Amino acid sequence: MITLASDFGSPYPAAMKGVVRRRSDAELVDVSHDLPRGDPRAAAFWLRFVLPEFPPAVHCAVVDPGVGTDRAAVVVRAGDHVVVAPDNGLALPPARALADDPGSEIDVFEVRVDDPASATFHGRDVFAPAAAAVHEAAGADGPPASSTTLSAVPTLSPTDEHVDLTFPEPAVTRDADGEPRTVTGEVLVVDDFGNAVTNVPGALVHGRDRASVDGDSTPVVRTFADVPPGDRLVTVGSHGYVECDVNDGHGASAFGLAPGDAVRFSFDG
Amino acid sequence: MITLASDFGSPYPAAMKGVVRRRSDAELVDVSHDLPRGDPRAAAFWLRFVLPEFPPAVHCAVVDPGVGTDRAAVVVRAGDHVVVAPDNGLALPPARALADDPGSEIDVFEVRVDDPASATFHGRDVFAPAAAAVHEAAGADGPPASSTTLSAVPTLSPTDEHVDLTFPEPAVTRDADGEPRTVTGEVLVVDDFGNAVTNVPGALVHGRDRASVDGDSTPVVRTFADVPPGDRLVTVGSHGYVECDVNDGHGASAFGLAPGDAVRFSFDG
Amino acid sequence: MITLASDFGSPYPAAMKGVVRRRSDAELVDVSHDLPRGDPRAAAFWLRFVLPEFPPAVHCAVVDPGVGTDRAAVVVRAGDHVVVAPDNGLALPPARALADDPGSEIDVFEVRVDDPASATFHGRDVFAPAAAAVHEAAGADGPPASSTTLSAVPTLSPTDEHVDLTFPEPAVTRDADGEPRTVTGEVLVVDDFGNAVTNVPGALVHGRDRASVDGDSTPVVRTFADVPPGDRLVTVGSHGYVECDVNDGHGASAFGLAPGDAVRFSFDG
Repeated sequence: MITLASDFGSPYPAAMKGVVRRRSDAELVDVSHDLPRGDPRAAAFWLRFVLPEFPPAVHCAVVDPGVGTDRAAVVVRAGDHVVVAPDNGLALPPARALADDPGSEIDVFEVRVDDPASATFHGRDVFAPAAAAVHEAAGADGPPASSTTLSAVPTLSPTDEHVDLTFPEPAVTRDADGEPRTVTGEVLVVDDFGNAVTNVPGALVHGRDRASVDGDSTPVVRTFADVPPGDRLVTVGSHGYVECDVNDGHGASAFGLAPGDAVRFSFDG
Repeated sequence: MITLASDFGSPYPAAMKGVVRRRSDAELVDVSHDLPRGDPRAAAFWLRFVLPEFPPAVHCAVVDPGVGTDRAAVVVRAGDHVVVAPDNGLALPPARALADDPGSEIDVFEVRVDDPASATFHGRDVFAPAAAAVHEAAGADGPPASSTTLSAVPTLSPTDEHVDLTFPEPAVTRDADGEPRTVTGEVLVVDDFGNAVTNVPGALVHGRDRASVDGDSTPVVRTFADVPPGDRLVTVGSHGYVECDVNDGHGASAFGLAPGDAVRFSFDG
Repeated sequence: MITLASDFGSPYPAAMKGVVRRRSDAELVDVSHDLPRGDPRAAAFWLRFVLPEFPPAVHCAVVDPGVGTDRAAVVVRAGDHVVVAPDNGLALPPARALADDPGSEIDVFEVRVDDPASATFHGRDVFAPAAAAVHEAAGADGPPASSTTLSAVPTLSPTDEHVDLTFPEPAVTRDADGEPRTVTGEVLVVDDFGNAVTNVPGALVHGRDRASVDGDSTPVVRTFADVPPGDRLVTVGSHGYVECDVNDGHGASAFGLAPGDAVRFSFDG
């Protein structure tokens, strides 16, 4: 299986599908082609969330504001999964989530680009061919790739040099009992429902009934329907992070939050 | 085959695809992930329209404003098709359309949710696993499910209690000859072309050349191109219901209509 | 393989998928269902660009402002590919690109529509069934179709009459050395990144460092990242044509350009 993810919208991803199909009979699965435009960190957030749901696969993920520059293309092996991506760090957070065990080894390979590639569409000219080559190297029945099979792909070379990407950690102040008093986090993404998803782990609001969000007292609830339609809420999303939402509404607009914005949660008593 | 439909946009549906693929080799077909947000009735309208085009399949359909509440999850068998959905009624109109014969029996099962599921993403945690289980129970070669095979799925229990959903009937006044004089209906959905689709069956405008739509005289035509570009028209869509459209334009905007709005058609002479 | 392309948005394409799957086990690949609405020329541009990336396949492409009129439906064979489309010309530019050799023969067949079809949804009632019939006629292992296999499909008849569509040629003035001095082209499409793609072949800006675009001096660069974020640029896209873009921005808005607009490039010295 080869999954495809990008910020390309339509119809550019179709060219990637054709390129893969010329080289491989692998099942093609669209993950998303509407990832936030030009934002490798947001792509890393979403792919860390959804790719671990898949069985072993080759994941071709292209959010690439550096296309046409000399940034490398990488193939990242994590457990039985492989992520093929530009070397801007987006592959690493999902790879860590895909590794069999936390802390298990992740191998990174650089893709050699022999043929003259376009300067604006490496999804077609670099990443789709690399994903197909990795898939074919593993063979139809094996896991999609081991370090050994990847080393045998002529266009790949092991590398110790690659860009990493980590998410910012929220700043936490605590009371005398060690309980969080204030948590200053950051909005990482706004999802298609309008929910403003932060970098604040759910555990930091565990047991709270209310939180002050940038000064406005807001209920902390288990699910949307715990507040009336149109009301604001704070909840822990299925990805494990704190969201600022509105039941049957658009949380980011209501809270005035956009990706990259700081957001401060404080708790009474 | 497992078809997937939701109002999730992107990238949440990818998590459902991964969950299914871990449990089943079934072909995955995206029906739509842009169904009108939080509107089970609109989902029921669209799925009643498109699902009967498919051969026997398991259809996983999630428009679920009640996620995280105690609403049940249901598996609805209709002929050789199965619809897996939240128990908010959205499955029933398509199931009635999928049944072999009008009035033939439809079986409803409740899904037992054993594992701790998220409070906000039952598409991943409840509906996708149930769809995969139903598909696998039927076996690779049989129809996707019979009542017998479904009864053997450990997580399913037959139930007589479930939410149904029906579409409102238009109010009709008739002249002395029994011909419709006025029809007061409701806009059910606005499609991606901007066409305002009502609950008025096409037969009620049959043979008419013009209709007064909320007071404005409008041609009743066979197809868009029967009026000049930019002009309003009334036609019977491929789903069999009356639409208020504009040729090469946005009917809902031109007529000032949105889902849920009443719309009154009247006919002279 | 059957690829699907349309301007239908969602969920109408699902009905086409169901119709095909009832008639054929062919792999279904979505090319795009967000092609520019009602613009066969834009569809032709995009499909000419992406379809040649695919191995031999049947391509079902429906952008059909004339649905319900007496325009014909055509099946166009080019090399081992087949394009099934309304007879408004959209199939021809991609077919010329799909032909094995430039200038090689392209066969056109008209689809006989026997059954009463809807007046508004020929994607479901005419084009999807025709694509499935063509695919099945070719057999599972052969190329998707030869002229011989197509001639044997009962619903197809060879025709010499069909609509063609060509892209406008830019007007070029040259200096004494034969170098372009001014090039007046037209915007063909605006892509999802906001890039305004013209009909001007890249060769006409080859070797230039700057171009005056409708009077504003703009750098001509190899790729987006050659200018700072937010800056305008002219480049040659992966389709080979000149684009007016903004790095990490929306070129069409910045340049004030929309599909169909004239755009004049001039060069100093």
